[in-house]
Amino acid sequence: MSNKFSQSGTPQFKVKKVYSFQIQPQDVDFQYQVTLAALTNILLTTAGYNADENGFGIRDLNKNDCSWVLLRLAVEMKDFPLQYQKIEVETWVEEVGRASTTRNFRIRNAENVIIGQAVSNWAMINRQTRRAQDLILLDGIHHFATGESVEMQKPIKLASVESGLIETFKVKYSHIDINGHTNSMRYVEWISNCFDLETYQKKKIIRFEINFLNEIVFGEEVSIFANEIEKNDFRFEIRKNGATACKARIVMS
Amino acid sequence: MSNKFSQSGTPQFKVKKVYSFQIQPQDVDFQYQVTLAALTNILLTTAGYNADENGFGIRDLNKNDCSWVLLRLAVEMKDFPLQYQKIEVETWVEEVGRASTTRNFRIRNAENVIIGQAVSNWAMINRQTRRAQDLILLDGIHHFATGESVEMQKPIKLASVESGLIETFKVKYSHIDINGHTNSMRYVEWISNCFDLETYQKKKIIRFEINFLNEIVFGEEVSIFANEIEKNDFRFEIRKNGATACKARIVMS
Repeated sequence: MSNKFSQSGTPQFKVKKVYSFQIQPQDVDFQYQVTLAALTNILLTTAGYNADENGFGIRDLNKNDCSWVLLRLAVEMKDFPLQYQKIEVETWVEEVGRASTTRNFRIRNAENVIIGQAVSNWAMINRQTRRAQDLILLDGIHHFATGESVEMQKPIKLASVESGLIETFKVKYSHIDINGHTNSMRYVEWISNCFDLETYQKKKIIRFEINFLNEIVFGEEVSIFANEIEKNDFRFEIRKNGATACKARIVMS
Repeated sequence: MSNKFSQSGTPQFKVKKVYSFQIQPQDVDFQYQVTLAALTNILLTTAGYNADENGFGIRDLNKNDCSWVLLRLAVEMKDFPLQYQKIEVETWVEEVGRASTTRNFRIRNAENVIIGQAVSNWAMINRQTRRAQDLILLDGIHHFATGESVEMQKPIKLASVESGLIETFKVKYSHIDINGHTNSMRYVEWISNCFDLETYQKKKIIRFEINFLNEIVFGEEVSIFANEIEKNDFRFEIRKNGATACKARIVMS
């Protein structure tokens, strides 16, 4: 990594970076607001861009037959941007442990006001064994650990949801991506579909968090469970053939 | 319209135009190929751009409390573009009748080879009554009728599909657009989901056509029917609460 240091040994690489997005027609719901699924996709796209630029993107990891998997994500929003509005997403690595790394996000609107923040935890896995790899093996990433957190609660380990079956269906062609798996955005879409339009009209989502536990592949039978455990505190679980694929939480106000 | 004519009376407006697109990651399936739904979306986006530019887009019609509805679409493809590939879509109005207008498309790849063609039929409706309006009332569009067809069979009136129930489900939050309806792209997605991955691996779609009959709104129960009436000739029907929402056909080879 010596080429990335000046002669005095001071790091010269940029550890925080800002990416611009415009909310597209396909990203919005019936109220012209960006959907939680599209917003999640923007965050993950930002993470991908930044990791790529810094030399530890998916394609870099693929060279060693490894890949990133998203373990947990928490998002807090003050305001959801509307169709055609522009946002800026700032992202940086907070810390790099042995088993996982934390990447944070700050979302600003066109007036440069912070409208949202997010925290994500990632593990590096071997693509064949699907087992977590020690991040100490990943050259370069440690220089990017800024130690800077965001002012929100980190994603926690969520409890299981034992009742409240909403629907059961088989995973189809349009649900899978180029890896043959259902991607994170689809999980968020299925969770978002548990609410009726009146809820979206009367309330707003202020916090969303999700734990990813297992991948879902084509043809598997998926069940979606949802429960309001306290007023405006909604818990979700997506199960497939007995195993938990993800657990999630939406807090509204 | 006098400002659009030269002094000799020759039309000066451009009646055919080409729009460029790049196939994005969210547009492709597990084989990195653009999905039929994403391709349909590209065609409808192209139609929207061109109608807007020529003064008879949705927003122009909205001023008179009217809107466009897509009645029928037929697409023939020699080749489906892959992720990140660039395509050019040429579009023009073929004819303008009293009850409907025909818009055609030609799709070229980056090597300027024609990889697909399409024909679409549209009606103008009143937004309150949802009834078709006489296109003679629409100022300006008639100058764009080129009379030029594409070398393929136009979309025909498809027969009903009486058996072969694939699935039944309720229309949810992520299925509806800003008008509160399920949009055309979603119909195509549901039809595409009737095939397993092996079919997509072994065969290719050479013709797709669809008749749109009724809109679907949030909460309605939808049933998808599919039948292979002859080898590689697949017929579909989407029904909601007894009425037919659309009928479609996919021919593979």
